[in-house]
Amino acid sequence: MSISRWLPCLDWGRQYNRSHAAQDSMAALIVTLMLIPQSLAYAMLAGLPPVHGLYASLLPLMLYAIFGSSRTLAVGPVAVVSLMTAAALQPLFPQGGPSYIAAAMLLAMMSGLILTLMAVLRLGFFANFLSHPVISGFISASGLLIAIGQLKHVLGISVSGESLVQLIPGLFSALPDTHGPTLLIGLLSLSWLWWARSQLKPLLQKLGLNAQVAANMAKAGPVLAIVMTILAVSVLHLDQSGVKVVGTIPQGLPAFSLPELDWRLALQLLPAALLISLVGFVESVSVGQTLAAKRRQRIDPDSELLGLGTANLSAAFSGGFPVTGGFARSVVNYDAGAQTPMAGVFTAVGIALSALLLTPLLHNLPQAVLAATIIVAVLSLVDLGSLKRTWQYSKQDGLAQLATLLGVMFIGVEAGILIGVGLSLLLFLYRTSKPHMAVVGQVPGTEHFRNVQRFDVIESPSVLSLRVDESLYFPNARYLEERISELIAARPQVRHLVLMCPGVNLIDASALDSLEAIAERLNIAGVQLHLSEVKGPVMDQLRRSDFLERFGGQVFISQYQALKTLAPELTLSTLEHSHSFAASNRRNP
Amino acid sequence: MSISRWLPCLDWGRQYNRSHAAQDSMAALIVTLMLIPQSLAYAMLAGLPPVHGLYASLLPLMLYAIFGSSRTLAVGPVAVVSLMTAAALQPLFPQGGPSYIAAAMLLAMMSGLILTLMAVLRLGFFANFLSHPVISGFISASGLLIAIGQLKHVLGISVSGESLVQLIPGLFSALPDTHGPTLLIGLLSLSWLWWARSQLKPLLQKLGLNAQVAANMAKAGPVLAIVMTILAVSVLHLDQSGVKVVGTIPQGLPAFSLPELDWRLALQLLPAALLISLVGFVESVSVGQTLAAKRRQRIDPDSELLGLGTANLSAAFSGGFPVTGGFARSVVNYDAGAQTPMAGVFTAVGIALSALLLTPLLHNLPQAVLAATIIVAVLSLVDLGSLKRTWQYSKQDGLAQLATLLGVMFIGVEAGILIGVGLSLLLFLYRTSKPHMAVVGQVPGTEHFRNVQRFDVIESPSVLSLRVDESLYFPNARYLEERISELIAARPQVRHLVLMCPGVNLIDASALDSLEAIAERLNIAGVQLHLSEVKGPVMDQLRRSDFLERFGGQVFISQYQALKTLAPELTLSTLEHSHSFAASNRRNP
Repeated sequence: MSISRWLPCLDWGRQYNRSHAAQDSMAALIVTLMLIPQSLAYAMLAGLPPVHGLYASLLPLMLYAIFGSSRTLAVGPVAVVSLMTAAALQPLFPQGGPSYIAAAMLLAMMSGLILTLMAVLRLGFFANFLSHPVISGFISASGLLIAIGQLKHVLGISVSGESLVQLIPGLFSALPDTHGPTLLIGLLSLSWLWWARSQLKPLLQKLGLNAQVAANMAKAGPVLAIVMTILAVSVLHLDQSGVKVVGTIPQGLPAFSLPELDWRLALQLLPAALLISLVGFVESVSVGQTLAAKRRQRIDPDSELLGLGTANLSAAFSGGFPVTGGFARSVVNYDAGAQTPMAGVFTAVGIALSALLLTPLLHNLPQAVLAATIIVAVLSLVDLGSLKRTWQYSKQDGLAQLATLLGVMFIGVEAGILIGVGLSLLLFLYRTSKPHMAVVGQVPGTEHFRNVQRFDVIESPSVLSLRVDESLYFPNARYLEERISELIAARPQVRHLVLMCPGVNLIDASALDSLEAIAERLNIAGVQLHLSEVKGPVMDQLRRSDFLERFGGQVFISQYQALKTLAPELTLSTLEHSHSFAASNRRNP
Repeated sequence: MSISRWLPCLDWGRQYNRSHAAQDSMAALIVTLMLIPQSLAYAMLAGLPPVHGLYASLLPLMLYAIFGSSRTLAVGPVAVVSLMTAAALQPLFPQGGPSYIAAAMLLAMMSGLILTLMAVLRLGFFANFLSHPVISGFISASGLLIAIGQLKHVLGISVSGESLVQLIPGLFSALPDTHGPTLLIGLLSLSWLWWARSQLKPLLQKLGLNAQVAANMAKAGPVLAIVMTILAVSVLHLDQSGVKVVGTIPQGLPAFSLPELDWRLALQLLPAALLISLVGFVESVSVGQTLAAKRRQRIDPDSELLGLGTANLSAAFSGGFPVTGGFARSVVNYDAGAQTPMAGVFTAVGIALSALLLTPLLHNLPQAVLAATIIVAVLSLVDLGSLKRTWQYSKQDGLAQLATLLGVMFIGVEAGILIGVGLSLLLFLYRTSKPHMAVVGQVPGTEHFRNVQRFDVIESPSVLSLRVDESLYFPNARYLEERISELIAARPQVRHLVLMCPGVNLIDASALDSLEAIAERLNIAGVQLHLSEVKGPVMDQLRRSDFLERFGGQVFISQYQALKTLAPELTLSTLEHSHSFAASNRRNP
């Protein structure tokens, strides 16, 4: 039981049969075709020699198959994590050099250790700090940043820098050096990929293929671009006229090696490793959850942490760089009919064969094609409409999203995320620091109590009923004291204050102190505090202090009960007023 | 209207009369007697020459009288803020030197600017970050730290360092150098002050004085210690045998001067200035609120910010250091019958006269007496029982309090507070990240729905009723998705899920995304999501998105209504089960 909790592969492995194997290997073939150009491209995006993209798509797939809980998630290099890798390493090392490669492996190892540790200590909770607006702002900004950063490969110029502040002036000043043939290859690839993305499948269907076959063949569109441009470069010797190509790729599988352990460097990379782990985990879990729900399966966040952790550790030992579950490849895997993570194992075999056999053929692949592959992939992640929708729904969330977006684009990836997370927290605390409170009165003829400003209700002159629509905790403890002081100071005839608590899910120690201070100050002023409609768990906690004995008031099961006890004369007036209720109900609740 | 909002003195000034003046001047006399030794002592604690304590008790009192909203708060140097001043400056400058004094004035100016800015921008909200457990832990730790730090003056030895890690070994190694006569003076003063604190008033009453006069005379106990020890030193020439005395105090009022503006230093002091401002504000407001409530008055947090801000600015221009509203002196002021802030103005006049006339007499005052004054004052702030009570009430709050306490004592004042604040936030987020959720069913024969695990209720096999007892926001958005996946995966026959929301005070953009994802995944699995008992403000916000149109379900006014609509067969079973309810009600709500 506890072993299978950590080894989800035992579940599906037991029932594995020939039909599963057939479906999984078909899916693996399609994903492999899609992964070859993507892996090379994302390695380039991460600042590494392209072959490391293939290395990062081997062992991680197998390890995830053993420890991960999603049946259809495909693990490997993804755009956003590759960008974060580049952002962390480019300021420290010459791009693509041996120390850069070693640092990328170290980063993968640290990310793997962090995720594994989070699995063991059950700290998946930390991923929740990344609110959806922050993630959405970050992803859109990353998409734009990556696309703009890849333009130099399409233009055949060289520009350095990570943030837009450096990139855009660099692009403009280097624009006159644009290399014609490279630009032509780049634009043709971009147009083809963009068109193939949405139009290739319908065309193939029109040509008579059935929907499934057409869809699978359309997935090979990028492969066609690669084959065509390699042929063009080889035949026209474009590499000799200045088109930058991938160059010699070492043939064969990666050698196992331990990343160098440089403690000072590890400390320096720790913030980046933490963010890469969290962002990668969040991206992977949301993909996994969406796909699992489609088949009414579920994924286990702890298993996901362990699956991704071991995947990253294996990447570190086999020449890879940080990886996670990718959206595009997982959807392709799912659509192609993958039944179990065995599809991932088959994909790894496919990639390994490519590394063994195909790498000599990739020598003449133009970098501009890889850049075009990246640009088309990431631009689909950019969703500025989401900013508008979020802003419309809530100014606070919109502000957090905007701050993340601008922070990532103009300051840097890590700074942007941290600004977004900090702002989300701050705005949430601000929002709950002045909770909605309503003085309520009895709706005539009922046992209901409603806001005196929205309804024509009956109030007792000596009993003030106050409903608080928020948990009582430190950000609003002082506000509660102030509001009650204000209300009581304005009503000299009040003798009882009943705090109505149906919306109070928590009373923390600060709020307890405040309630004690309120009760004491009210007592001095000749007013008694009472509570009503306190929830079970909150009541359980209050019983752990001596507040209930000391505050001198009562805890009523309902506000109606409170008024019946404290203002028995009030029920008399119920009948007098009841006729006016329907007419003067000013607004809905 | 808007001017009197910023000038509360216009309110009480209009009605000021001779009776007020008589009561205020009497209170001022008593507070002045108490303030002279305390001001000198707190200046010493802050690492400044004692006379600066008098300077800091002049203008600040007047400025607060103009802008502050509390009628009885007494502003000036206080123990905790003096300790924070010393902690900020001692690592940077030789104690008590001209650059140290200049930096203390700069710190007062920055604190004044921060508080004034918070008043203008209405940012008093930030003080809420200091939860009560954090403040309590900080005050207890400060009290212990200050008391231990003053022991060297009582022992007549010299020890340097701020945190206990430095102080305690220093004290032990210097113990053999203890100076006999100093120790004798110190112990006698300590014993007298400790005894006088609780026993002097009863004794004077036994001697026939009435309660009020006895109480006022008892307040002068510290003054007696000062007079007696000055006489002893003068007559026995103890200063020549090694008893350290205050020495020559410049006679007269402080010269007005602008603090030197050293921007690098200002940046370095910014974190300390921020914390001093927040801590001082929180201490002052809680004292002011307690005293105001006793007379059914109220204070205005923005006026308090402005009052304290201008008080600190004036301290900066007149040789002072950071000040705030003090607990002990305010209570004395209140008890002595102060009616308006004019009592503060009279106190300032009293202190000014002392600075003009009394300073030559203070030359022979032993430092050990000032140290004894501080120790007795701060030990009354130490409340370790509070830690136990907090821990009992809530482990999370107790943990934050303990961390602050240990952090302040063993790492440093600022680090301790920051650790406490960070931990409070983290634990709150953790607490709300896995909210209490209950599958509920109908209590037979009623319209109430209760937890199926606590009550014997009626459930529909096809309708799952789930109550969430927390606002839905980013820390728990993903948990909601996971829990619902789990629940639905375990109940294949369910066709409708009704989310019951009486405890949901907020649905943020992250939770909205999660609800959309949940609705979509449920739809794919053949289950329809519905909501019930959604509060007005939450409903208003949901209407700003297109969720309500798109999620396909209904929003029911009550859970009963939901079941009546979705599972009409359920009402039939009501009668069958109703007899078993009373018998099998397992536990209270």
